[in-house]
Amino acid sequence: MAKVIVLGGDGFCGWPTSLHLSKRGHDVIIVDNLSRREIDIELEVESLTPIRPIGERLKVWEELTGKKIRFENFTIGENYHRLLTLIQNEKPDAIIHFAEQRAAPYSMKSSYHKRYTVNNNLNATNDVLAAIVESGQDIHLIHLGTMGVYGYGTAGMKIPEGYLTVKVETEHGLTDQEILYPANPGSIYHMTKTQDQLFFHFYNKNDQVKITDLHQGIVWGTHTEQTRMHPQLINRFDYDGDYGTVLNRFLIQAAIGHPLTVHGTGGQTRAFIHIQDSVRCIEIALNNAPEAGDKVKIFNQMTETHRVRDLAQMIADKTGAEIALIKNPRKEADENELHVANDRFIGMGLEPITLDDGLMAEVTEIARHYAGRCDLSKIPCVSTW
Amino acid sequence: MAKVIVLGGDGFCGWPTSLHLSKRGHDVIIVDNLSRREIDIELEVESLTPIRPIGERLKVWEELTGKKIRFENFTIGENYHRLLTLIQNEKPDAIIHFAEQRAAPYSMKSSYHKRYTVNNNLNATNDVLAAIVESGQDIHLIHLGTMGVYGYGTAGMKIPEGYLTVKVETEHGLTDQEILYPANPGSIYHMTKTQDQLFFHFYNKNDQVKITDLHQGIVWGTHTEQTRMHPQLINRFDYDGDYGTVLNRFLIQAAIGHPLTVHGTGGQTRAFIHIQDSVRCIEIALNNAPEAGDKVKIFNQMTETHRVRDLAQMIADKTGAEIALIKNPRKEADENELHVANDRFIGMGLEPITLDDGLMAEVTEIARHYAGRCDLSKIPCVSTW
Repeated sequence: MAKVIVLGGDGFCGWPTSLHLSKRGHDVIIVDNLSRREIDIELEVESLTPIRPIGERLKVWEELTGKKIRFENFTIGENYHRLLTLIQNEKPDAIIHFAEQRAAPYSMKSSYHKRYTVNNNLNATNDVLAAIVESGQDIHLIHLGTMGVYGYGTAGMKIPEGYLTVKVETEHGLTDQEILYPANPGSIYHMTKTQDQLFFHFYNKNDQVKITDLHQGIVWGTHTEQTRMHPQLINRFDYDGDYGTVLNRFLIQAAIGHPLTVHGTGGQTRAFIHIQDSVRCIEIALNNAPEAGDKVKIFNQMTETHRVRDLAQMIADKTGAEIALIKNPRKEADENELHVANDRFIGMGLEPITLDDGLMAEVTEIARHYAGRCDLSKIPCVSTW
Repeated sequence: MAKVIVLGGDGFCGWPTSLHLSKRGHDVIIVDNLSRREIDIELEVESLTPIRPIGERLKVWEELTGKKIRFENFTIGENYHRLLTLIQNEKPDAIIHFAEQRAAPYSMKSSYHKRYTVNNNLNATNDVLAAIVESGQDIHLIHLGTMGVYGYGTAGMKIPEGYLTVKVETEHGLTDQEILYPANPGSIYHMTKTQDQLFFHFYNKNDQVKITDLHQGIVWGTHTEQTRMHPQLINRFDYDGDYGTVLNRFLIQAAIGHPLTVHGTGGQTRAFIHIQDSVRCIEIALNNAPEAGDKVKIFNQMTETHRVRDLAQMIADKTGAEIALIKNPRKEADENELHVANDRFIGMGLEPITLDDGLMAEVTEIARHYAGRCDLSKIPCVSTW
């Protein structure tokens, strides 16, 4: 079993990942500056689910399972010395890096939000890599990236797992060269993830840091086996226009009898993965570290693709909700197709939870159950770009 | 004539650029936090040439020419509000962005230097772009990038001006897609410049910011027509192992009778440009702003390429210096060729100063003249990676 530091272990993906790994016998330390909770205060919104303070969460977890997860509160990208000391003292096998601002609409709200996202995400990634190198230890870095690094610009594009071989001109004629699959980000948030790829490429090439970059689709679902164990362990459910994904906003709209608001024609195709599958993929990545000298491993962490309007229809069919088309606040193609390779995780034994199977549980267990906590005024996307 | 803000206008390229543009009738405002002078203090080294404080430089300039250059001392990337206010009040036609840490060896000295370079360079570029967008003004951003974004990995690679058309797989078969020419940086410094390219790509696509990115070769030479006008206007000459380019280190070694220290076999091919040509190129770029809707303009700002050992031989031939081969402190190929397109500037009327013509003036006017100020112990590259 591995010793793992989870950066951003109090967040929507980080929290269930920490519990999953702890339950599976890994030794988990969480670092988090609780910035996501502070952003809730800024946005005057709350998780639909009543999440508990991190100290309470960890106490309940220990009482239930006998497993202790240590917590440190500091900012990755700011307090470098504390990160380095933690790594030097704990000698982790792996670091899982969720310590980034993760919402595209939030990153586009204003200059402040652009600057916060760039400063936070890029300094965080660089600090983690510099600290791994300075520690001199053999640590596997697992990073949560996004499928959105590629944009959705090219009609019917097929997204491979990370790399593309292109022809470049040399004096000896055209030569094959393998490059990072070209990036085309659609927001400041997505841009920082494309810049992260260049950090990984460089530190891997120069310092042989072992890195797995998980290009994740839209994560849906709230519960994993562990967060379901006790109400005080419940995970976040964001439904607001900044942090709520399209699917979560549809779910809460369906629960309160509001029409499902589809941007544009709803022809945008997106990739999805359930939070339970996401945490499983992360453990698969943890158990399959790159070998010494390997290039950055890139996996597409998603299990199915849907057009947004088909997703709305699926929810409407199950719940009786209506559908309303509204103007798209984002600059993006109205219609796009998406063909994503995800052979790697499937080949490693992942058996996906499908939207078709899991959606109703989300509607009844989460959206309808906590509908009374919903602030309707927060659902629309007000960040336009 | 244009109103121009020069960010980093006290530095090696920024200072002669500011004077050149001022002399040509443009209205110049310099912003600089004097960080390059502070780094001299940190490294316990000085410019070989006795550069004067910025206030004195500007006073002399005004006395000589009657032209006033305003100076503001603050940090780009940190004091966003002051930058935004300056832009809002001054309404510049263009911003020339030199406000980045520019030495590869310095960026690799330690975690502190990696973190400083990343934080400084990336937040600076993002702040400038965010401020241009927030101001709502039509401002042409001219950025000094580097040829080094491409690395020197592929044998005999031909470096085009910015873009490459590749085939990507779609459901309709292979489709042409134009991408940024693939990056392959060799240091943290170079990496930040590849990340800058992604800032430019995004802000140009999303906000239609007009951007020219100048991928510069190694700048040599000290004087321009303006810095030569008065001793108090003299430009920097760095010869230390961190900031001194290979050429400057050869020049000072020749001047003091020390063998020219060539890394490895000296088979590395590099691109060069004289500082006088550099400032001319920048004015050409200023006078040729992109049209509304244009993608980022990328120019290779260089005039000739040489292998390092040929450069050493050229200087040895002119000065009688000896050549010494030493171990290369950097991770890079021992031998590489380089074929660089620079049709754009040549097509716009640039008539280059060649090394063959200009080198002896550097040896006699600068290196020999100021040799007494040289600290020999500072010449070797001690930063290894």
